[in-house]
Amino acid sequence: MKYSQIYRRALFDDVIPFWITHSLDEEQGGYLHCLDRQGAIYDEDKFVWFQCRQIWMLSLLHTLVQGDSNYLNAASLGMDFVEKHARDGNGDFYFSLDRTGRPLIKPYNIFSDCFGAIAYYQYGAATSSEYHLTESRKILRQILLRRDNPKGIFEKSTGIRDSRSFALPMILSNLALQMKPILDTDEADILIRECQEAIFGEFYNQETGLVHEVIGKDGQKYDTFDGRLINPGHVLEAMWFLMDIGEKDGDIGLIDRCISTGLHHLNYAWDSDFGGIFYFMDHMNKPMEKLEWDQKLWWVHLEALVFLSKALRFSDKAELRSWFEKVHNYTWAHFPDPEYGEWYGYLNRAGDPLHTFKGGKWKGCFHLPGAYYIARRLWRKWECKY
Amino acid sequence: MKYSQIYRRALFDDVIPFWITHSLDEEQGGYLHCLDRQGAIYDEDKFVWFQCRQIWMLSLLHTLVQGDSNYLNAASLGMDFVEKHARDGNGDFYFSLDRTGRPLIKPYNIFSDCFGAIAYYQYGAATSSEYHLTESRKILRQILLRRDNPKGIFEKSTGIRDSRSFALPMILSNLALQMKPILDTDEADILIRECQEAIFGEFYNQETGLVHEVIGKDGQKYDTFDGRLINPGHVLEAMWFLMDIGEKDGDIGLIDRCISTGLHHLNYAWDSDFGGIFYFMDHMNKPMEKLEWDQKLWWVHLEALVFLSKALRFSDKAELRSWFEKVHNYTWAHFPDPEYGEWYGYLNRAGDPLHTFKGGKWKGCFHLPGAYYIARRLWRKWECKY
Repeated sequence: MKYSQIYRRALFDDVIPFWITHSLDEEQGGYLHCLDRQGAIYDEDKFVWFQCRQIWMLSLLHTLVQGDSNYLNAASLGMDFVEKHARDGNGDFYFSLDRTGRPLIKPYNIFSDCFGAIAYYQYGAATSSEYHLTESRKILRQILLRRDNPKGIFEKSTGIRDSRSFALPMILSNLALQMKPILDTDEADILIRECQEAIFGEFYNQETGLVHEVIGKDGQKYDTFDGRLINPGHVLEAMWFLMDIGEKDGDIGLIDRCISTGLHHLNYAWDSDFGGIFYFMDHMNKPMEKLEWDQKLWWVHLEALVFLSKALRFSDKAELRSWFEKVHNYTWAHFPDPEYGEWYGYLNRAGDPLHTFKGGKWKGCFHLPGAYYIARRLWRKWECKY
Repeated sequence: MKYSQIYRRALFDDVIPFWITHSLDEEQGGYLHCLDRQGAIYDEDKFVWFQCRQIWMLSLLHTLVQGDSNYLNAASLGMDFVEKHARDGNGDFYFSLDRTGRPLIKPYNIFSDCFGAIAYYQYGAATSSEYHLTESRKILRQILLRRDNPKGIFEKSTGIRDSRSFALPMILSNLALQMKPILDTDEADILIRECQEAIFGEFYNQETGLVHEVIGKDGQKYDTFDGRLINPGHVLEAMWFLMDIGEKDGDIGLIDRCISTGLHHLNYAWDSDFGGIFYFMDHMNKPMEKLEWDQKLWWVHLEALVFLSKALRFSDKAELRSWFEKVHNYTWAHFPDPEYGEWYGYLNRAGDPLHTFKGGKWKGCFHLPGAYYIARRLWRKWECKY
């Protein structure tokens, strides 16, 4: 079977039906996304990341599959709930809500808001709703106001050793690219340029070619637990975000740089004993704080597949093709649940499922359908070319 | 070899020399406790928990081994550093400092303060210093003022679903018992009674016999990730704290209850496939948030050994003896580093070292020497009896 067919079938015959069948909370609104191996609800709390991410995914599918109102109805179920319950008086997004929508965890960071922005944007685009598009722009601007102190009063650092997290420029570059159509002239471009400069000018380590997860305000690389940390999945994700930007701008130099940086991280983080990509590494090979460093996570491997699928559109390097096959084969051999569908999220180092749930606090209807969606599209174009 | 000899030798010929040799920061004061497998320093940050815990341990050893000033000198090196740098203007303990003592992470919880209290107490007792004893009492009283809101402004919960953590009554019961000699009449007893009532009256689940890690303010058991969580190491630790209290009070009923509760958790949390005690479990067998749930941690097994050693003083149950041998054998077969001494802290489920460092953010000169110290003493008494 062609790759495009594999990914199309997996998307429409497995993953999306799984979430549509099991996660819609017709009673209280929103999504019940803590689903066990078989799709049964085991926890009713609603984590805002996954309310927003599922709205985004379903809205995107509606745009793709015209004439089927199921996706839009399901997206609206989430959007109505988010609209009613997800934000505090200041407009910031809570981290979690109970099933009925009462806020449980305060807005202690801005990542909920980032997923809020793309949910409103994509839903607005799917429904041509000026209100949602305007809201998404407001949310993004509020994020930008908070970005120098994203944790606000919850920041535990004294500031004596200042730090910045890679996740922020990574996600902001993606937001800016997605939402460019509704932003002011130059607004998206300036933000994208800033993020790009931060990633390659500051988080990137010239000596090792690795991208750090945490650096100082002036780009310092600290010799500390955080400062030495490499998160290969984050880097692969950022590389395909930046490749998208390179493609829009016709910037071949940027695309080449992303491809070589991504490949470098794949070579660096691949577990040569058991296969798969490590979750965390220490760039000096020192002991790590992260207990889960050797686990193999679904999203890391999906980001790798998307990175490689995109890279193959721009380059015929045999290395890219063989990496794609290697990651594809490992991934499809270990993550899908042959009995109940969807994917396991967390494997131990040897590749056996460590957790068998399909949705939880950090896994929902997002990475898997999102990656399938992109990979299907890319491989269809690629396969048509030859 | 007798158990008392095994534990004595391990304490004085292996663990304490390891820390005395490698961790003392003669240059800046305090302890450099992030030590790799061979004892080399790989991170210079000073985590206040382990500054305080090492002071406590060394002070205790000084009291035990009269006439050797090495322990006291080493304890003073830590105490001087803590005294100079560890507290903010309000007297609360920072979470971490850099090598020179500049504060890095704010006092976002009260556990640093709890270890501060026992450090000041034990150092005061070792040196007959009224100043340090008085300070320890002040620290404890400040902890008690903060205990209903231990995270202060860093609390992320909205309060709509209130919660209490098992760690607090557990550690407070131990503090109260240790510091009883310097507390007011009834002050320690009231605190101990409150903690005991919280543990057996509220955190204890009547239906399952398991002790929860998180409950509601009124003792509710929530069906949520946190609410279902069981931390067997914490429970075993608390059971020997409460046995100490039972012994002081001559409360045989309490001791019996601790023994049966501890045994129940050992039976519950023992990994029948690979041996060892799981780090986390879900009392409803639902999916867990904790990615590291199946790992085998040094401190969990040490708490089990101390629990069993103590229990054997009060009961000749064959079950206790066989559990002690089982845990002792597993532990000594997997945790000690035969080449460079001390123990690995973190094994994977199969019992292989997942991290090889000897000290880190959450491991230092505390559980291992502390457990050796107690086990040596208990087994000497026990072995003399027969």
